Amino acid sequence: MAMEQAAAKPDHTAFLNTLQRYGDAARAALLERIPMAEPYAHLYGPMRAYIENSGKGLRPALLIATCKAFGGREEDALPSAAVIELLHNAFLIHDDIEDVSDFRRGRPCLHHEIGVPLAINMGDAMQTMALRLLRGNLSTLSPRTGVRVVAEFDHLLKESMEGQALELGMIRDNTLDIGPADYLRMTLKKTCWYSFIQPCRIGALIARPNDVASGRLQLDDFNAFGFFLGAAFQIQDDVLNLIGSQQKYGKEIGGDIYEGKRTLMLARLAKLADLDERDKLHSFLAKPRAARSETEISWVLNRMQAHDCICYAQRAARNLLEAAQKAFDPLFCDAQPEDRQFISDCMEYMISRDV
Amino acid sequence: MAMEQAAAKPDHTAFLNTLQRYGDAARAALLERIPMAEPYAHLYGPMRAYIENSGKGLRPALLIATCKAFGGREEDALPSAAVIELLHNAFLIHDDIEDVSDFRRGRPCLHHEIGVPLAINMGDAMQTMALRLLRGNLSTLSPRTGVRVVAEFDHLLKESMEGQALELGMIRDNTLDIGPADYLRMTLKKTCWYSFIQPCRIGALIARPNDVASGRLQLDDFNAFGFFLGAAFQIQDDVLNLIGSQQKYGKEIGGDIYEGKRTLMLARLAKLADLDERDKLHSFLAKPRAARSETEISWVLNRMQAHDCICYAQRAARNLLEAAQKAFDPLFCDAQPEDRQFISDCMEYMISRDV
Repeated sequence: MAMEQAAAKPDHTAFLNTLQRYGDAARAALLERIPMAEPYAHLYGPMRAYIENSGKGLRPALLIATCKAFGGREEDALPSAAVIELLHNAFLIHDDIEDVSDFRRGRPCLHHEIGVPLAINMGDAMQTMALRLLRGNLSTLSPRTGVRVVAEFDHLLKESMEGQALELGMIRDNTLDIGPADYLRMTLKKTCWYSFIQPCRIGALIARPNDVASGRLQLDDFNAFGFFLGAAFQIQDDVLNLIGSQQKYGKEIGGDIYEGKRTLMLARLAKLADLDERDKLHSFLAKPRAARSETEISWVLNRMQAHDCICYAQRAARNLLEAAQKAFDPLFCDAQPEDRQFISDCMEYMISRDV
Repeated sequence: MAMEQAAAKPDHTAFLNTLQRYGDAARAALLERIPMAEPYAHLYGPMRAYIENSGKGLRPALLIATCKAFGGREEDALPSAAVIELLHNAFLIHDDIEDVSDFRRGRPCLHHEIGVPLAINMGDAMQTMALRLLRGNLSTLSPRTGVRVVAEFDHLLKESMEGQALELGMIRDNTLDIGPADYLRMTLKKTCWYSFIQPCRIGALIARPNDVASGRLQLDDFNAFGFFLGAAFQIQDDVLNLIGSQQKYGKEIGGDIYEGKRTLMLARLAKLADLDERDKLHSFLAKPRAARSETEISWVLNRMQAHDCICYAQRAARNLLEAAQKAFDPLFCDAQPEDRQFISDCMEYMISRDV
């Protein structure tokens, strides 16, 4: 039985090995650029520790793989890969404070370790360090390409902050009427640009600056692909928060419900709930987080299951993944096979992962 | 008697009018660049309101005045002046959360109005918008000057975050042994670079890019001046927090004591306190802010007065101001008279202001 299960599960070994290698390379490039300097105890020390303990490195890996798939060199992509990983970590630190989260990567969130004030400041320092690293980057790229890379980062920062405002605004206003289009727009802005679309665009831009300048390579062609893939990723991530294993997932299960996060499942539940359920859900979400009880979390989860909201979200993720796969084929048809395969595997992994 | 008082008080009218004019120009340039776009209710709306209600505009005024004093044009300085005002406001929003402050500019802090999550995100969006505005700036400056201006902003961001880490770290560790050198180093980093030194440097750089490139104008010559002036400003600001008028000052009087802020007065009190006083001070500062009582605040203030800490700080501010005045004369001797006068008045205002 155990063997059958093992056989049925897709083998992600090759993908995960490459992911690890690209992620490690970006992390190493990033750590090289973080000062071993004062103030160490309250800034650069915890910053280095946070990066050393960081996640899989999906975003830098996607950037490096896209660059190589389009004929570029890994070393040319590394500085930008380091910047995207830096920004991702900066976002997580502030997100965890904004969402009143408790766990990340299997341990207490940074603000529980060093306090909210120093954690806010560390996130700020990492965001502004991105500007510094991008300036350093300009020496290896041509001036024209360097300026374009900065514009890509500028855009992803703008979209991410706007997306975060949409999400936090819905929580603050206790908005329950969230249609699929609202959900997807928020996800496009808060997740897809910085995690998927722009890593591909920046990778391709670094690989083929002349084709981008001449218009032979249109960076906008990556937008639909990255949007579909990113939305599938986000929905699956939110599903894992409900049904995953805390040990593997590294966050508390059901944490999103505690946080009142506007997931596709919550939006679906609000739509299908009868009047009594909707009132109860609304009152629950109007409470401050600390006032939400375990019994209430179980009730929300139970109602999501009764209304088939989790299966609905899983189907949506699967459909979005299929759309990403369709967008992928023409986009990467002439790409270098090895990294083309990595990105193809990445898509499947997005949905079948349990961690 | 009333007339005598009015006569004894230095007349800041001309200075304040110019300050208002430069501040308004920078604010207008900044508001032009903040989108009137979605997400409005939770991002750009409150951002515009925050800027519209912002302070005196000291930093952009100093930048514009230095630029003009060195022969530059106001319109060339405006984009950088807008960026420095944007960053200042972004810092204040996060600082107020980090310091657990309640009042700013005579009204509740932003995080009390829109909540901590949206306030953190708004500060982030403003910080990253600075990068966008700087990119836009590059079109009006020559590429070489543009790159130098970005480097100046990069440096001020680094110093400010490092200085903030020093200050927040001392509060978190409940450090009491803070010598004058520690205090001045922290103030140099968290206040002087972004508020005084770099506005002068950037103004001069925009006015005389060729002299800076050739080495005829050394931007480092502004460092000592801006440091002395900035430290005098910060000490006076902290003194006003203890003895000012809440109505004029716009923050709660004694708020810094509630926050456990490491001011020169607190450092001096810790040094002069007897063992019992020191123990009591240490225990008071070890409490979370909400547990600090009005009686305790009064006791700290009373001990500061008993040990002459406030007069000590006022003397220090006066000495620093004199050092700034000495550094000013050779630095601005060939400067255009009108803006030279403005900066000279600015120094006097730093100390004699009550608001």
